[in-house]
Amino acid sequence: MNINGKHWRTIWLEDDGCAIGVIDQTKLPHVFTTLKLKSCQEVAKAISSMIVRGAPLIGVAGAYGLMLALMENSCDEALEKSFEKLVSTRPTAVNLRWSLQRVFQRVQYLEPALRVSAARDEADLIAKEDVLLCEAIGVHGLSLLKRLCESRPLNRQNEPLNLLTHCNAGWLATVDWGTALAPIYKAHRSGLKLHVWVDETRPRNQGTNLTAFELGCEGIPHTVIADNTGGHLMRNGLVDGVIVGADRVASNGDICNKIGTYLKALAAYDNQLPFYVAIPSSTVDWSISDGSLIPIENRSGNEVTQIQGVLASDARKLELIKIRLSPVNTKALNPAFDITPSRLVTSLLTEHGEIPATREGLLGISERL
Amino acid sequence: MNINGKHWRTIWLEDDGCAIGVIDQTKLPHVFTTLKLKSCQEVAKAISSMIVRGAPLIGVAGAYGLMLALMENSCDEALEKSFEKLVSTRPTAVNLRWSLQRVFQRVQYLEPALRVSAARDEADLIAKEDVLLCEAIGVHGLSLLKRLCESRPLNRQNEPLNLLTHCNAGWLATVDWGTALAPIYKAHRSGLKLHVWVDETRPRNQGTNLTAFELGCEGIPHTVIADNTGGHLMRNGLVDGVIVGADRVASNGDICNKIGTYLKALAAYDNQLPFYVAIPSSTVDWSISDGSLIPIENRSGNEVTQIQGVLASDARKLELIKIRLSPVNTKALNPAFDITPSRLVTSLLTEHGEIPATREGLLGISERL
Repeated sequence: MNINGKHWRTIWLEDDGCAIGVIDQTKLPHVFTTLKLKSCQEVAKAISSMIVRGAPLIGVAGAYGLMLALMENSCDEALEKSFEKLVSTRPTAVNLRWSLQRVFQRVQYLEPALRVSAARDEADLIAKEDVLLCEAIGVHGLSLLKRLCESRPLNRQNEPLNLLTHCNAGWLATVDWGTALAPIYKAHRSGLKLHVWVDETRPRNQGTNLTAFELGCEGIPHTVIADNTGGHLMRNGLVDGVIVGADRVASNGDICNKIGTYLKALAAYDNQLPFYVAIPSSTVDWSISDGSLIPIENRSGNEVTQIQGVLASDARKLELIKIRLSPVNTKALNPAFDITPSRLVTSLLTEHGEIPATREGLLGISERL
Repeated sequence: MNINGKHWRTIWLEDDGCAIGVIDQTKLPHVFTTLKLKSCQEVAKAISSMIVRGAPLIGVAGAYGLMLALMENSCDEALEKSFEKLVSTRPTAVNLRWSLQRVFQRVQYLEPALRVSAARDEADLIAKEDVLLCEAIGVHGLSLLKRLCESRPLNRQNEPLNLLTHCNAGWLATVDWGTALAPIYKAHRSGLKLHVWVDETRPRNQGTNLTAFELGCEGIPHTVIADNTGGHLMRNGLVDGVIVGADRVASNGDICNKIGTYLKALAAYDNQLPFYVAIPSSTVDWSISDGSLIPIENRSGNEVTQIQGVLASDARKLELIKIRLSPVNTKALNPAFDITPSRLVTSLLTEHGEIPATREGLLGISERL
């Protein structure tokens, strides 16, 4: 995708093959900067501190992290230890375990001397696939958005399609294109008029920080709203549909996504609006029967009581400042994800197209894999 | 209520009778400071800039504002002009119009020379009544909370009662006691064990800024959460009930309250949890048949894209800083309230006790007035 007219991906193998480059997402939208990660340890830290985030992207980062670990030490014990280190950085998104397992399985029966190169090939492949899968989600999503446009009353056909999204499931959450935003990028490029309501997505504000930044770079009309606002907009006919990503999907179609997703799904349901969840099939956890079994990451309460930005009084001064919002020593709880039961999900939008958020629907794509 | 062991009300007539004192709520929780408002103009500004806020409190402030206006000029024309000026400061809460009308009606047939003293008496009376009504809500609410405690499974009877509240409907929103928090204060003082989940309440963070401050001053266990979090807690059995205030109640029981209330009501309903709305009967707008007719205030988008706090790195440094969260020039929409349909409300908690959120329920209290 584009930043100031230049094409970027969120992660790349550096030319020397001994490090990966990433965009530092903790500084966006205020400062655009990249980082070179040279070891498994640095990748693990980048994932846990959310320098890279988004279920598909941390999967790819994890895969490269395992490659870097093997560069340091390619014996069996080191392989297993690094796998465990990386997989434990963030517990909720299943893509991380899935991609680490792919690299692990690819190298485990190889002689140690051959492992680095095989791990690199597998990580490259996962990254490449991620771009293709996300673009496919975009293509299927474009048809879906066109149908959604046409299903509106005749007197509203000329208005922009109003979509609401929560958190960031854009290209910054993947290698390129994004999941929930891929259809929006495809639609915008095909000339479909749309407008996106961007949930700011407290506590880490990925909506304000990342989604607004992405959409701005691509010139897509959007408006940031407090997370509290979506229900009100839906009740007032200002939303045509909701589209979000997911960090894990249980085999019955329950969705685990950024905290607050459940509330938007309830509001969409109450207002008879479609609620779509865009995912590559690697986000499905076939081993889990329903959403209640998905581990929910608890992050530091400081992410709720403190927030980062730049001085409001001077748009040129881009020094990042962290302020405290609450009274001193206020306790805060910060679960990062919630579960949206499948009954509230209109459909899953995958690289294979739209499928029902049910066991049967998911089994359908499983057969195609 | 108590601040550092001293009893405070949110508004008072200064000793000279020519000004009112208020707590400046835009600086809480970081800086506690009071302001002396000496004219109708200053009161109007204090209401619109939210130095004083909360439906009952702006009602009282408005009443005193009209008194101050009459001190400057007590003729009919000035009375009408000042009424209009004050009533237009904030459009949603009905208590403001209600209390201004009370003062207006009290003075309108008096000779101009007698008006100031009559206006003062009426404003004093409204303030005094507000304290009594809120305390009565607390007393009725205490019984309700006791019943809620006892209705829990036997193995949970010894756990603190977990209540969730949105925005600030505490004593800072009234003259004293509060509406939604009055039952919590009464319960805490009577020895009932409870814990409050405090929605931070973006964009203006009245939960983090005011509710956490109030509960902290009173020593009531509480935890601040992002507005996104309540649904997840409810699904996991961590909430026993929700209690909020309201800025206006339509005559069919639809509730207008801080943006995001509707989402919490949906979640409570989906999890079969009680959702209580605590109001003095002055919050009912008998002239409005349903919630869709209540005007919703749109505030500046800057309240979404910027936020105020104090440097996180130094707890002693209490200089207020405003930071920008979003990319430069990001558009934001900021409706301050939403409508919760009466079907999602378990009951209204009034100074007369618990009543159904229905036309019939409201007519019942109307007959008692």
